[in-house]
Amino acid sequence: MSSVAIIRGDELLLFDAGEGTQRAFLRAGIGLNRKTRIFITHLHGDHCIGVLGLLQTMSLASRDKPVDIYGPSGLSGFIRSSQKYLRFGLTFDVRIIEIRPGLVLNCKEYVVRATPARHSVPSFSYCLEEKERPGVFYPAKAKKLRVPEGILWSSLQHGHQVKIGRRIVRPVDVLGSPRRGRKIGISGDTRPSAKLRALFKACDVLIFESTYGDDHRDKAIENLHSTSREAGQLAKQAGAKQLVLTHFSARYADVKPLVKQAREIHDDVIPAEDLMTLQVPYLD
Amino acid sequence: MSSVAIIRGDELLLFDAGEGTQRAFLRAGIGLNRKTRIFITHLHGDHCIGVLGLLQTMSLASRDKPVDIYGPSGLSGFIRSSQKYLRFGLTFDVRIIEIRPGLVLNCKEYVVRATPARHSVPSFSYCLEEKERPGVFYPAKAKKLRVPEGILWSSLQHGHQVKIGRRIVRPVDVLGSPRRGRKIGISGDTRPSAKLRALFKACDVLIFESTYGDDHRDKAIENLHSTSREAGQLAKQAGAKQLVLTHFSARYADVKPLVKQAREIHDDVIPAEDLMTLQVPYLD
Repeated sequence: MSSVAIIRGDELLLFDAGEGTQRAFLRAGIGLNRKTRIFITHLHGDHCIGVLGLLQTMSLASRDKPVDIYGPSGLSGFIRSSQKYLRFGLTFDVRIIEIRPGLVLNCKEYVVRATPARHSVPSFSYCLEEKERPGVFYPAKAKKLRVPEGILWSSLQHGHQVKIGRRIVRPVDVLGSPRRGRKIGISGDTRPSAKLRALFKACDVLIFESTYGDDHRDKAIENLHSTSREAGQLAKQAGAKQLVLTHFSARYADVKPLVKQAREIHDDVIPAEDLMTLQVPYLD
Repeated sequence: MSSVAIIRGDELLLFDAGEGTQRAFLRAGIGLNRKTRIFITHLHGDHCIGVLGLLQTMSLASRDKPVDIYGPSGLSGFIRSSQKYLRFGLTFDVRIIEIRPGLVLNCKEYVVRATPARHSVPSFSYCLEEKERPGVFYPAKAKKLRVPEGILWSSLQHGHQVKIGRRIVRPVDVLGSPRRGRKIGISGDTRPSAKLRALFKACDVLIFESTYGDDHRDKAIENLHSTSREAGQLAKQAGAKQLVLTHFSARYADVKPLVKQAREIHDDVIPAEDLMTLQVPYLD
């Protein structure tokens, strides 16, 4: 059962919500009234059934902030018909957006893109990409240009030019070059593909499915999943810095061999675990 | 999230299937291809959402035995529409029976009855009641009547008369009086009521909801739930031998006070826990 929660500032971006997500939510102490956006990769039960319970539990907690839910065609029918039969009212607005490939969301500080995945039903892979941030602030340069410390420094740091008497000081005068944001990829269920290599180019963290190991590559092809080695290859080719393997078949009581197979290709690979937390630092 | 699994011989009787049931199923090692009947008390998510994932996981395990699912009106719509949107095929037949109050199921060895519960949506409480079994077999009596040991003894034990030459020996000649079967009640979500007292009369085990304690009796009335004390009172009045409290509100980190309140009324009360197993012995 899949679900990845990205907490970015005061916002939660939830990618998939398999059965049991609300329980993991409570155990992780994420909080039910946080600004939230949910992205569903595809309408298989292990990736989306948890949305129903999560919405109901948010409602029981008297949530008031709206929730936007993005996903493939049919998502709205699934949620709205369940709502009808389970007769659950909600204390907040739910907006369901059935997406097309490309730019799904363009916020002030980040974008979310979707690319069709190769699975047995219409599926998307997602990528969260932060926009560039202003460069490093150099106090020495500001002092040399006689900018008084305080609010003017802060303005420059946030990329706004300031006026001192008749002089104009521009951010470029006191800042280093713009710094790239972080990039996190989430594959959902899929075969590897050139499109996904492009989507996940230079990810800081790539969370990629590895349902099978080398021993069942035939099953991976037949069931439109990936092996851990294939995940490693795609991560390497895309230049992803870290690869997190997930969605292991229940047949593997021990996933170490799968991790080993991926590590033969990519040198920073870890297996996902329930309730695992990962910090994604800025790299410059 | 509610689910009670009764394993009786080779059969599984599942009462409710809240979110996460399939996971508990696997952890409990119940087995996905067992003869199974599912009874849903009402269509609130915490009592029925788990059906979807359970059916899909049974299918992934190539189940071939049919599953019968009993419950209130709307159950069929909920399952069939989810099946449509989640596009899940099944490797076995699912028969959905939207029930009326009364005798729901009449099998060779037991019956299941349903009575309307008092909750915010159409709801049932269920009772599983075994039919009488033949009385104790007395080998001494059989020997005295010169019944040869072996298959004829077995026939008599199972309640069939046997012929020895021209003589007929009847079960009543060698058996004690019929023994009562076991009786297990499951409340679902409900206020206490006279109807439920009647349904649960002389239960061996009564699994009754106790969402609240004395401190929130007003909420119990408002939200159509029961307090643990009310559960104790109903169990006592019904003559239920053991009371299992369940469905505690998440507000109670410690349910001991609720158990204590019920024990002030009924002397055999235990709180349900996830994955708890209970043996229900024959009492005579």
